[in-house]
Amino acid sequence: MAPHETQLRVRYAETDQMGVVYHANYLVWMEVGRVEFFRAAGLRYRDFETNAGLHLAVAEAQARYLAPARYDDPVIVRTSMGKARPRMVTLEYEIRHGETSAPLATGFTKHVFLAAGTMRPAKLPLEYYSLFGLE
Amino acid sequence: MAPHETQLRVRYAETDQMGVVYHANYLVWMEVGRVEFFRAAGLRYRDFETNAGLHLAVAEAQARYLAPARYDDPVIVRTSMGKARPRMVTLEYEIRHGETSAPLATGFTKHVFLAAGTMRPAKLPLEYYSLFGLE
Amino acid sequence: MAPHETQLRVRYAETDQMGVVYHANYLVWMEVGRVEFFRAAGLRYRDFETNAGLHLAVAEAQARYLAPARYDDPVIVRTSMGKARPRMVTLEYEIRHGETSAPLATGFTKHVFLAAGTMRPAKLPLEYYSLFGLE
Amino acid sequence: MAPHETQLRVRYAETDQMGVVYHANYLVWMEVGRVEFFRAAGLRYRDFETNAGLHLAVAEAQARYLAPARYDDPVIVRTSMGKARPRMVTLEYEIRHGETSAPLATGFTKHVFLAAGTMRPAKLPLEYYSLFGLE
Repeated sequence: MAPHETQLRVRYAETDQMGVVYHANYLVWMEVGRVEFFRAAGLRYRDFETNAGLHLAVAEAQARYLAPARYDDPVIVRTSMGKARPRMVTLEYEIRHGETSAPLATGFTKHVFLAAGTMRPAKLPLEYYSLFGLE
Repeated sequence: MAPHETQLRVRYAETDQMGVVYHANYLVWMEVGRVEFFRAAGLRYRDFETNAGLHLAVAEAQARYLAPARYDDPVIVRTSMGKARPRMVTLEYEIRHGETSAPLATGFTKHVFLAAGTMRPAKLPLEYYSLFGLE
Repeated sequence: MAPHETQLRVRYAETDQMGVVYHANYLVWMEVGRVEFFRAAGLRYRDFETNAGLHLAVAEAQARYLAPARYDDPVIVRTSMGKARPRMVTLEYEIRHGETSAPLATGFTKHVFLAAGTMRPAKLPLEYYSLFGLE
Repeated sequence: MAPHETQLRVRYAETDQMGVVYHANYLVWMEVGRVEFFRAAGLRYRDFETNAGLHLAVAEAQARYLAPARYDDPVIVRTSMGKARPRMVTLEYEIRHGETSAPLATGFTKHVFLAAGTMRPAKLPLEYYSLFGLE
């Protein structure tokens, strides 16, 4: 899967009294990037949850903040696939300013598959292997 | 049911670049007040969802903002029952500063009961009538 | 000013355990609609705060929820100007599903102008009158 | 500075449609833990921002999710000081269930001091050294 870029615009709700975007919101942006990354590859994440009966639960998240994003800034989230295994996948993110291209943050999320009903760890079904770059 | 007061403290995450609490967060505080209001009356809302199989979905919400709440302020949410009927209940809120008692906001939320599975309107079971002040 | 429509997509972060969008997030969407409404009219709200030295603080907000929005739904926010006076303006919103056009919510926000430094009520400068439909 | 424990209760707003707490909210809880950690040590973070004219900006954040927190769960955030230098401090967190003590998450935040006006990196003033465990 090729890296994918999606654009969003900073909401007033996402700022804090420091006058910049509150740091936890970058994890939400990574989620937006991830969903659009999968959509570009032909997978609507909503359908994945329903059809495969799996959640792609976050097992670890990390973000490095390089420069502050500000209200109304256009922001680009570049998402790419990291290491993928049948029980765990990592996605990587580069977040930059939409006009100046100044890097704002980098990060990753590590995910495990959980069965929707039991919330217990599960293995990705074979039919989704190619989509996640697995053989 | 007697009015109930619960206290919380403004989180940095709840502020915006105006230097005050972002207005949508008052609706979250009303939710906190509502849950503690029910708990004080002997109803754990989590159990209500599970046992009655109902959601108390928000059909309408309104807030009037009187003075800004600021980061780290102690805030008191006073919740009281408004009009209650078997299919719809209204809760009312007064939000004030925890130290100065300055009024910060007032508001209400109007709720309908929804069956958990179908998400269709439902009637409150008789056993919960007294709790909601119904006869 | 003509009504303006802007589209967004429901984020996973915006849902709650009821499986639908948490009600307070509609106020955030109204903010998104409002900002794009002003942008379409030639006013970048960020510049307004800087140039006019004013905040368009929310004095009242109201939302009626008609049908639940769900994760990944495309959502359209239609924003139009309500009553406008030099010290207070009201904006109105209709929120509907982006594909089915099913109405999801309606609401309004009433705003007062606050001077950025003192946070005291202020009057809109004459140069912005036409933009807000004032004479 | 001794580790500090603060308790909070999971809000409905913090859950997502997976039926558990949305992962980005753990960073907000870390902020709550951090603020109470400093308060227990005699520093009101709000006053620090005002008096020292500094922000403790987040330069990096990481969280490992061990078990899901659920709506209405009591949650304990245990905050302790990690490595501290005049320009950068790290805080560490252990988040566990308030009743069962089951570990829910661990993580850290790395901070730099920024001058409030210019938002440029700054050095912690000497008077705050002992508070941050610096000599």
